[in-house]
Amino acid sequence: MAASPLRVTIWNEYIHELTVDQVRAIYPHGLHAVIADALDARFGSSMEVRVATLDEPEHGLTYASLAETDVLLWWGHAAHDRVSDEVVQRVHDRVLHGMGLIALHSAHASKIFRRLMGTSCMLRWREAAEKERVWVIDPGHPVVSGLRDEWFELSQSEMYGEHFDIPAPDELFLVSWFEGGEVFRSGCAWRRGKGKVIYLSPGHETFPIYHNPNIQQLIGNAVQYAAPTGSLYLGQGRNIVPSLSPIAARYFVDEGLHRSK
Amino acid sequence: MAASPLRVTIWNEYIHELTVDQVRAIYPHGLHAVIADALDARFGSSMEVRVATLDEPEHGLTYASLAETDVLLWWGHAAHDRVSDEVVQRVHDRVLHGMGLIALHSAHASKIFRRLMGTSCMLRWREAAEKERVWVIDPGHPVVSGLRDEWFELSQSEMYGEHFDIPAPDELFLVSWFEGGEVFRSGCAWRRGKGKVIYLSPGHETFPIYHNPNIQQLIGNAVQYAAPTGSLYLGQGRNIVPSLSPIAARYFVDEGLHRSK
Amino acid sequence: MAASPLRVTIWNEYIHELTVDQVRAIYPHGLHAVIADALDARFGSSMEVRVATLDEPEHGLTYASLAETDVLLWWGHAAHDRVSDEVVQRVHDRVLHGMGLIALHSAHASKIFRRLMGTSCMLRWREAAEKERVWVIDPGHPVVSGLRDEWFELSQSEMYGEHFDIPAPDELFLVSWFEGGEVFRSGCAWRRGKGKVIYLSPGHETFPIYHNPNIQQLIGNAVQYAAPTGSLYLGQGRNIVPSLSPIAARYFVDEGLHRSK
Amino acid sequence: MAASPLRVTIWNEYIHELTVDQVRAIYPHGLHAVIADALDARFGSSMEVRVATLDEPEHGLTYASLAETDVLLWWGHAAHDRVSDEVVQRVHDRVLHGMGLIALHSAHASKIFRRLMGTSCMLRWREAAEKERVWVIDPGHPVVSGLRDEWFELSQSEMYGEHFDIPAPDELFLVSWFEGGEVFRSGCAWRRGKGKVIYLSPGHETFPIYHNPNIQQLIGNAVQYAAPTGSLYLGQGRNIVPSLSPIAARYFVDEGLHRSK
Repeated sequence: MAASPLRVTIWNEYIHELTVDQVRAIYPHGLHAVIADALDARFGSSMEVRVATLDEPEHGLTYASLAETDVLLWWGHAAHDRVSDEVVQRVHDRVLHGMGLIALHSAHASKIFRRLMGTSCMLRWREAAEKERVWVIDPGHPVVSGLRDEWFELSQSEMYGEHFDIPAPDELFLVSWFEGGEVFRSGCAWRRGKGKVIYLSPGHETFPIYHNPNIQQLIGNAVQYAAPTGSLYLGQGRNIVPSLSPIAARYFVDEGLHRSK
Repeated sequence: MAASPLRVTIWNEYIHELTVDQVRAIYPHGLHAVIADALDARFGSSMEVRVATLDEPEHGLTYASLAETDVLLWWGHAAHDRVSDEVVQRVHDRVLHGMGLIALHSAHASKIFRRLMGTSCMLRWREAAEKERVWVIDPGHPVVSGLRDEWFELSQSEMYGEHFDIPAPDELFLVSWFEGGEVFRSGCAWRRGKGKVIYLSPGHETFPIYHNPNIQQLIGNAVQYAAPTGSLYLGQGRNIVPSLSPIAARYFVDEGLHRSK
Repeated sequence: MAASPLRVTIWNEYIHELTVDQVRAIYPHGLHAVIADALDARFGSSMEVRVATLDEPEHGLTYASLAETDVLLWWGHAAHDRVSDEVVQRVHDRVLHGMGLIALHSAHASKIFRRLMGTSCMLRWREAAEKERVWVIDPGHPVVSGLRDEWFELSQSEMYGEHFDIPAPDELFLVSWFEGGEVFRSGCAWRRGKGKVIYLSPGHETFPIYHNPNIQQLIGNAVQYAAPTGSLYLGQGRNIVPSLSPIAARYFVDEGLHRSK
Repeated sequence: MAASPLRVTIWNEYIHELTVDQVRAIYPHGLHAVIADALDARFGSSMEVRVATLDEPEHGLTYASLAETDVLLWWGHAAHDRVSDEVVQRVHDRVLHGMGLIALHSAHASKIFRRLMGTSCMLRWREAAEKERVWVIDPGHPVVSGLRDEWFELSQSEMYGEHFDIPAPDELFLVSWFEGGEVFRSGCAWRRGKGKVIYLSPGHETFPIYHNPNIQQLIGNAVQYAAPTGSLYLGQGRNIVPSLSPIAARYFVDEGLHRSK
């Protein structure tokens, strides 16, 4: 079960903000800082928010810090391949054991998201500052709570378009319309092992999208929704020799068959 | 689209049949041979069946042979880790591009199945020759066509039990009851990329399960169901610069942002 | 199982074509005639197509004619409430027992579709002859087979927009973009009982949409996909007194409890 | 959104407890009283629980009382047909507008559940006091939170068995094993309109199942899970004449087409 306060880690590769003036102007302390402030403002002391970035040792995602994370947000774009496979393995394990993962924008192409999905996760894209209109497809879904209308707009956005190569979402709650002609499943949820995985597509670094109150509302809801729930999860093979109910057959097992060859 | 005749490859690690008398007695030419015969008997010249095994060069799964495979069946148990990562990658690519994959029994723990699922795919198990009663959960599903009742029995089976750590199936059509007390989602389907993935659990090597006519019926149906269908699949990112519909904004793109850092 | 040839009934309320010049000009013999011709052209003698309309006795959907229908297409708009509840009941029964149902365009509001869905099935709409661009969301789905690109366009269409109040589709294969700003889940499939239900939204009567080759391709695929498959379906309660496996308890059943009070 | 405290109504047809000694002995004040006490004990003042029964005026489900209900539990068995269609209509509307509905045991055959599902909702059954072992299929699901193992047992239960004629659940979290040989999807969730619908099968009136702590845990979790969430839901057709984005075509609409004929 989730801890109280809920322990949230925002991971950001944090490259564009340090190297590109256009991005720094929008996110002077990194886009993670804007997201962290938004969570603080909404949840205060009921949420404990920390940040981690690519250039920290172990990308700031040590076993210890992950063990104390209930929900992990992930933003990456230019350096997916610089994330170490060992850290990816460790995040994967934590998701299966119940940690929520919220993949933001170009995290669709991150190692961890692709590993959890099992598909290419590739898509159409165009950076042309076009209008994106985000439509609510499932008005009862917890992640859209607090939105005021059937849709909201982002006046300038990067287009992400279908076909988006993901497994059919367990829950599809947002679909975006783009001025240039495409559509996109922009809000999706899946369950993997005991953990919840959410994808929210809006969030290109050259537009002030994480300053948008609707986007902040969605992220806040997603964090709450992805908090750990449920019961015993084992996630490993277990040989149950004594049966729960009686078995008629008498049978000799050649255990050698079950050893790796 | 699927070729006509449909081109089917049965992959078997083919170890137990060569090394364990109990197994050889049931499957003297390998369990793949029994499955191949069953498909031949049902489909004749409308299906072209070949077999491939672990010890062949490239495990019998060269680029060429995979390119000419519409549906691949996979049986493995004792040597999952001896399957080369390169071949797994190549099978994964083919599935995303439309080749059907039917994972049989302990192939739940194969590299290819786990990669497509994104979870541990682990489960409870017990080898005690207990009764398994296979229940139809979705009587309209194509894979159960031709079954005669609401259920059928396997008098002796290995128990596979829940929790089975898979993503929720897109389609669940069989659930098994075990004499010793467990239940199991024994017939499941997912879509990944353009391909269909089916899991059929009954099939332990020490019982003559692939000789069972109901199991043969299910496998035959599954092969037909997993045949390639659909339209254009790209499975890679594509930057669509000219928009399909007009965009009001005038915008300069810093392409440098989209390069790996 | 489906008969061979596949027996298809196209039901049309057939009002607009007889009463509105603009519609008659596009569909002089009814839009059902255009769909029937399209199926004939594609499938020839492997499909037996008949038509039925609102004003026939029992709307042309007698027990006998439904019993001989494998897949039923339904187009209605102005007279949903003139369809008799008895006929709706009869179609519902047939769907649960395996007949495919393809709801076209404004059949979203038909009695039979709403009954199968359990929701209002209502939506946004606008008739403004705007462009609709239909995107393939699931490129491996059988219903999109034969489409040539990631999308196709209808130069003039009625807008149907989200939120579309349906249960989450078991399979979502098309999402439409509309020039005026909306998105819509335009190709969906569900299973109900033993039957398959498909919804295809494009098809407003004042535009020549059923003459469009892509739409004809989708309808042809949908008919094949919705053909009956599967095994025994009972669809009624059944009291199974002797158990399949032994039960330890000795127990007296007061059958009176199970009678209606 | 849900009120605080959460307002819960437990509806019970309340017939067997008044007329059958065996049932009265287990539930002297009605099974609704046991469920109400269990919710009180767990949630105290954060939940406001009331009860309603068949024989009250309007079955205790007036517009006013439903308007003040966030989650409705439903237990019925012998008198489904005595529930008035008008009340069913009113409950249906409330569910679509966000009220949670938890259908218990033989409520699978209630008018309201069948209307929300669109299928027969029929099943195999046997009353033989056999053992039921309830398995967790989705260990991360909120409704199973607090369970201590992979399964729990009910020493005596009524068998409900597959095929259970429901639409594939949006979420399947429990599957039951029965001593006599059947399996059953015993914990399921769907979304309909803005509301959540949960089905929990264990609960036959001749066994003390609602006294079982695991069952009480599941019901408590289900009530919390089914609480209203989300944003604007309209659930009716709406003609959006001015478009959100510009449309090139100039077009005259014959509004007469959209009138009922």
